[in-house]
Amino acid sequence: MSNFGFTDLHLVNPYDVAFREARSAVKSQYVLEQAVVHADLAEALTGCSLVVGTTSLGHRELHTALHRLERGARMIRSNWTNPGGRVALLFGSEKFGLSNDDLSHCHWCLRIPTRDEHESMNLGQAVAVCLYELRRDSRAALRSHPAPQQAPAEDLERIASLLKELLEKSGYVNDRTRHSTELKLRRLTKRLQLNKHDAEIWLGMFRQILWKVNRPS
Amino acid sequence: MSNFGFTDLHLVNPYDVAFREARSAVKSQYVLEQAVVHADLAEALTGCSLVVGTTSLGHRELHTALHRLERGARMIRSNWTNPGGRVALLFGSEKFGLSNDDLSHCHWCLRIPTRDEHESMNLGQAVAVCLYELRRDSRAALRSHPAPQQAPAEDLERIASLLKELLEKSGYVNDRTRHSTELKLRRLTKRLQLNKHDAEIWLGMFRQILWKVNRPS
Repeated sequence: MSNFGFTDLHLVNPYDVAFREARSAVKSQYVLEQAVVHADLAEALTGCSLVVGTTSLGHRELHTALHRLERGARMIRSNWTNPGGRVALLFGSEKFGLSNDDLSHCHWCLRIPTRDEHESMNLGQAVAVCLYELRRDSRAALRSHPAPQQAPAEDLERIASLLKELLEKSGYVNDRTRHSTELKLRRLTKRLQLNKHDAEIWLGMFRQILWKVNRPS
Repeated sequence: MSNFGFTDLHLVNPYDVAFREARSAVKSQYVLEQAVVHADLAEALTGCSLVVGTTSLGHRELHTALHRLERGARMIRSNWTNPGGRVALLFGSEKFGLSNDDLSHCHWCLRIPTRDEHESMNLGQAVAVCLYELRRDSRAALRSHPAPQQAPAEDLERIASLLKELLEKSGYVNDRTRHSTELKLRRLTKRLQLNKHDAEIWLGMFRQILWKVNRPS
């Protein structure tokens, strides 16, 4: 919850021993400290304008609409923008999931798209996947972490040219193949997709090798 | 891993006690049974044409490109379609993450878009989120789980009409408001977005109430 910026944990009739022994990760103590315990589900849902159940499907007949997480998350996000659009995302116990009683409180249900042969998930992992999907953002994903600046053409040209000189000195190139080697090296260098920083490192290394080749000990 | 259909678990120098005591969930024993233990990372990566590291960023300077999970998963999926495009997704230890040595084996890195104030994730949850993102499919999400058949207009009209009769019998409607009530009921009924099955239940309930209203005991 803390990883993805969710703060309001409500527990209905939790198993006391487990709840008292629960420990938070660093930086997320506040989630457990502020958790509210309720005697029943109706009380826990007070003030929510949308109640979404989670289910692994298959194990019982649902009497409510079922959406895959990808779509369900979009529907939840659009509810957020409503004033007062408080949403409850409901998880059942690890062993039994939500009961039919619990499900009757839900406007609709979502399921994580697991493979059909293994639908039941670890509770903590199921929560993490749902909250991630609520926060994911394809457009932000493209904006952030700009790629390092690509090496300019002149750097690549210098690399290819140094390499050609090295290969000539090393006897790799002969007169007949000189021009085709030059083209080959330029294409090879382009395909490296070097960034500016790496291009400078390669230039330095080739210069050093060339120095050595020119001054054999 | 089993939830999302991934089978090949490779471990580098695992903590022996934890590994021997690890127990699989039902239906996923095969993942641990087939897990391969390696003495070093290079050996574990044999045969992989793409190696992607996972990092929570911030804690060290990366010397490699970093993509958010949403975009990184797309890049990995496009590599899958290449013949022989075997991809390794690399996770570090819960406590320290990947070392600089480990990261030097990576073509690039991805990070899960957690909030900046709490980047470090539980290992099992981080794996679940990454594998979910690799399997998620917005288009499949729209295709699957067709919504239940919506109630046809004539059912809604019968509901509105029964309700109007009920309200007239109950003294809710007077002559002056009769027509506006009719319109109001039709709009109210439309907004319920009833499916065919539920519409029949409502019709049955209103008929029963009307029967009672017509034959007071």
